[in-house]
Amino acid sequence: MILLVAVTGRDCSQLIARLQALLPEVDVQLWSECSNYEAVEFVLAWNAPADLWPKLVNLKAVSSFGAGVDSIDLSAIAAHVPVVRIVDDNLANDMAEYVLTHVLAHKLRLKEYYLKQSACTWKPKRAYAHQHVGILGFGELGKAAAMKLVANGFKVSAWSNSEKQHPEVSCYHTQQGLNEMLPLVDYLVCLLPLSQHTAGIINEALLTMLPPHAVVINVARGKHVIDTDLISALDSNKIRAATLDVFTEEPLDKDHPYWSHDKITLTPHCAALSDINSVVEQISANVKRLVYGEELINKVDRTKGY
Amino acid sequence: MILLVAVTGRDCSQLIARLQALLPEVDVQLWSECSNYEAVEFVLAWNAPADLWPKLVNLKAVSSFGAGVDSIDLSAIAAHVPVVRIVDDNLANDMAEYVLTHVLAHKLRLKEYYLKQSACTWKPKRAYAHQHVGILGFGELGKAAAMKLVANGFKVSAWSNSEKQHPEVSCYHTQQGLNEMLPLVDYLVCLLPLSQHTAGIINEALLTMLPPHAVVINVARGKHVIDTDLISALDSNKIRAATLDVFTEEPLDKDHPYWSHDKITLTPHCAALSDINSVVEQISANVKRLVYGEELINKVDRTKGY
Repeated sequence: MILLVAVTGRDCSQLIARLQALLPEVDVQLWSECSNYEAVEFVLAWNAPADLWPKLVNLKAVSSFGAGVDSIDLSAIAAHVPVVRIVDDNLANDMAEYVLTHVLAHKLRLKEYYLKQSACTWKPKRAYAHQHVGILGFGELGKAAAMKLVANGFKVSAWSNSEKQHPEVSCYHTQQGLNEMLPLVDYLVCLLPLSQHTAGIINEALLTMLPPHAVVINVARGKHVIDTDLISALDSNKIRAATLDVFTEEPLDKDHPYWSHDKITLTPHCAALSDINSVVEQISANVKRLVYGEELINKVDRTKGY
Repeated sequence: MILLVAVTGRDCSQLIARLQALLPEVDVQLWSECSNYEAVEFVLAWNAPADLWPKLVNLKAVSSFGAGVDSIDLSAIAAHVPVVRIVDDNLANDMAEYVLTHVLAHKLRLKEYYLKQSACTWKPKRAYAHQHVGILGFGELGKAAAMKLVANGFKVSAWSNSEKQHPEVSCYHTQQGLNEMLPLVDYLVCLLPLSQHTAGIINEALLTMLPPHAVVINVARGKHVIDTDLISALDSNKIRAATLDVFTEEPLDKDHPYWSHDKITLTPHCAALSDINSVVEQISANVKRLVYGEELINKVDRTKGY
């Protein structure tokens, strides 16, 4: 069988070498150099070329190269083919640390002080007293961020697609639940999976419901945010600031207004960088499960998209 | 009796009004408007004028206006007069949060990304993996910072004047202990009291013992640092970066090289701003203890200076 690496936009040589070393009985190939499409049973995919999928007539499983499956066109893959994703404790820890760090950075006015330092301005101000963080999305990443925030004295609310309960987090669901939560939170962190239901969720209607001192932090996908709505909410003081790690197009275009916006802190999709060690281990584990006819781990519910 | 407020460099009217309200039987006066020096029994001091002390022939107690007593010339106060300081849980919490925030900011490269944003540069980098924080000074503030760092997965070592033990912190003392600790730490946080033994402790000899990726964070007093040594350690890549909240002269002179140094993050003595509510409560409690002949709280060991 062939394990096809259909990851575009990066050099995959190290990834292929590592997978081949862990899976000596499998033929690991790069999509652009595939010798026999009919022998491909497992695909590791990230923005794979659209014309690839129809050629894979014996496809048995697909793994995303990341935590999300939004880089995969699920409609191009037969319904009986399981799709799995990477669930990496390191990713969740890194993400939680990024969220805590950027919430604290806003609370303690770090960007304000960086700008004052550039201007040689000495003006001490008390840190914001705000302590309530709302999280959109309460899966592995949302829970890890919530626990880290709770451990640091923050009050945490979380909104999710389905009804959830947690002893230390106030849980909300449905549109009505979202409407109830938004006015209460000082920081809003987006950790939702990207689906047709969540694309564009951070729009004018949502931003208007936040208090004017609120800070928006998006670490999920760029398409969760309507860029023009966010900028106009910042410019009209509907919210105080935003930190963005993800963008509709990456790298972000040099001309995008986000770069020079004083109220926006921009990081280059670095909140949780996949660790190649855990990625290759998890993929090889699923390839072996496929070979031995076992149920794959971290399967995606294709109707939900995560 | 008169409670004399000898706090210079700020408007004390609100402070005096609050103290007077809590202490209706005491006459609260500003040092520059004192009607009767012989009636002064208690002084609240912060950089008091040197010629004040000899006039206070019936002085019974002195309180610093902050956590440190380095703003008070102890040699000008008779040895039998107790000197107390402000110990404020909020101060310790704020300080611990500042330390955690700035350690995380260096770990996650926040200033690097701010600078890259200004230059429209997209260059994701993994956060530093460094997790070992060394703390100089293991009093209330040092312990509060240590506990917050430990709770967030950091390994913490602490160096103090006297021998200490702690189940979750590696404790060092003596010059030899300091020499052992410095090469091990990734972040060095100064939370020492300022005394003749600790002034200038962050000098070339100390900085040379740190690993080249180390970050120095000073939240104690400006005089702990030899400014020229710190700048030359940064410029010669002996250490990676520094965050400074305190300076020998405050506000920092507009011409000081710290302002424009890329590797220095500068904040305007805002790590732990005294909350007037807890300050006035603590001072009035000690004034009442003095009136009732009780032992004062938070007394300073005048030989140690803290």
